[in-house]
Amino acid sequence: MTFRDILDIFENNDNFLILTHKSPDGDTLGTGFALCYYLRDMGKKANVINADSFPDRYNFMYTDYKPQDFDVQYVIAVDIADPKLIGSALEEFQQEGAVDLCIDHHISNKRFAKQTYVDPDASAAALIMYEIFKYSGREISDIIAKCLYTGIATDTGCFKYENTTPKAHIACAELMAYNIEFSAVNRRMFDVKSRGRIEVEQTVISKMEYYCEGKCSMIALTTKLIEDCGVDPAEFDGLASIPLSVEGVKIGITVKQRHENVFKISVRTTEEIDASQFCQQFNGGGHIRAAGCEIQGTLEEVKAKLIEAVEKVC
Amino acid sequence: MTFRDILDIFENNDNFLILTHKSPDGDTLGTGFALCYYLRDMGKKANVINADSFPDRYNFMYTDYKPQDFDVQYVIAVDIADPKLIGSALEEFQQEGAVDLCIDHHISNKRFAKQTYVDPDASAAALIMYEIFKYSGREISDIIAKCLYTGIATDTGCFKYENTTPKAHIACAELMAYNIEFSAVNRRMFDVKSRGRIEVEQTVISKMEYYCEGKCSMIALTTKLIEDCGVDPAEFDGLASIPLSVEGVKIGITVKQRHENVFKISVRTTEEIDASQFCQQFNGGGHIRAAGCEIQGTLEEVKAKLIEAVEKVC
Repeated sequence: MTFRDILDIFENNDNFLILTHKSPDGDTLGTGFALCYYLRDMGKKANVINADSFPDRYNFMYTDYKPQDFDVQYVIAVDIADPKLIGSALEEFQQEGAVDLCIDHHISNKRFAKQTYVDPDASAAALIMYEIFKYSGREISDIIAKCLYTGIATDTGCFKYENTTPKAHIACAELMAYNIEFSAVNRRMFDVKSRGRIEVEQTVISKMEYYCEGKCSMIALTTKLIEDCGVDPAEFDGLASIPLSVEGVKIGITVKQRHENVFKISVRTTEEIDASQFCQQFNGGGHIRAAGCEIQGTLEEVKAKLIEAVEKVC
Repeated sequence: MTFRDILDIFENNDNFLILTHKSPDGDTLGTGFALCYYLRDMGKKANVINADSFPDRYNFMYTDYKPQDFDVQYVIAVDIADPKLIGSALEEFQQEGAVDLCIDHHISNKRFAKQTYVDPDASAAALIMYEIFKYSGREISDIIAKCLYTGIATDTGCFKYENTTPKAHIACAELMAYNIEFSAVNRRMFDVKSRGRIEVEQTVISKMEYYCEGKCSMIALTTKLIEDCGVDPAEFDGLASIPLSVEGVKIGITVKQRHENVFKISVRTTEEIDASQFCQQFNGGGHIRAAGCEIQGTLEEVKAKLIEAVEKVC
């Protein structure tokens, strides 16, 4: 598929439904809302949906967003590598043929949509979307620029991670020409913590465990620990980068309880270890430095499986 | 002064001494070492000095650096706004006429050198240096690119802060064409913490004080607290961004004891407050969102003065 093909799809269809992935992050939301506003600016009808609710944390991207009323004619998934990530609350879109177009940057994309545009070299799905919009020559609004900047900044850890490319920097240099209040966005995305979050991090850090002579660190977030902390459980989201922040650690693992015997695993690695490969042995996937999977069992069983796998790569 | 004037100075002189500011950061060191390697590549003799020792934290910029033996003929200060910042260990360069050229990006630059090039719109001194090198057309080496990237990345908080410009993004997009291992640099500059540092942050955060209904937060680092913590005192450097990281805080203040009754104050602010102006009333200065000053008195007296000033701006 070319950018021209995608722009033709926008032009020749209407009543778009844009799917973003469950547990939404800045990239899926930034890409999804940017596309929604862009289609509306073209005179089309478009909505964004998510299996979960849209988090408060990102509300600056949808303060003025109102869902429109229409019968869906065309479904676009953004930043979704696998139909599972659409979420069970939107099960009908997990069926084969339910998604017309998927725009994504994950190399592991399962090609589940009727048509797929994947650029695994793109730092963020938002960067692909920016390039499509730029190719079209159509002027974008400030809010579209802000959504795209947020997607790129969040998926690159504010230009910090290895997936940051010269293209990502140049796109953001161009997006700064719009009124996007980028430093306020970055402060909110990367710096500001609620007092509850600070408490959570204090608790989690004090309970961090080390393996393989300090090359692996692990935090385990059980339902009990989360309840005992007494703060909003949402404060426990996005802690995955903490274990890797300790000097000497090559692989940082966050184990988070989903149900009684089901744990969501987030893995972050330095150059020495392939996180995606590590998670594949547990039927997961993702990026080379950031990946995830789900493991069933008791916490002790899950940890034992992980430590066994860690010992092979450390 | 023009870039041409500066390049003529490099061409027409030799035996350069490059001064970096005391308590050196990534920008003064990145700019200083980039210039040193550039002059050496031109066939000139050049050294970098600092009133303090060069920190381990930045040693990837000077792993292979060896001081050269020569009689100094030309003195260049980089990223130094005020002769006081040269440091008392290098008192001879604080005298009038001791510095030939100063290249800086602080609007508060005191014009103490015989010639001064200041660009207050530059995100970092390293960005000015990059533009000078680029203007010259002379190829730069990987280590020069790495030093310049480090200067720009550290002074912009990895492109997060308001002082980040499109030019800073574009310069770094260009510098990424060199072998600079930018993600390893960023991980080291922004993410990795020693276990000692983690302990320090845990201690400091647990002792944070709030004023003005949570709009001001303050941490006080006394010599006693630092000694009691039992980790390397260097782990207490650069904590200034922590107070501002709490949700709702507009002005974050770090008070650090220098001597018995002398405290160094670091101030960080959100858009609502001018940090430089705030510090000027205590004869300090800096940037609009990050500034500093020194206040004498007991800790209680110093805090009282600060809180009085805070109440006027919150």
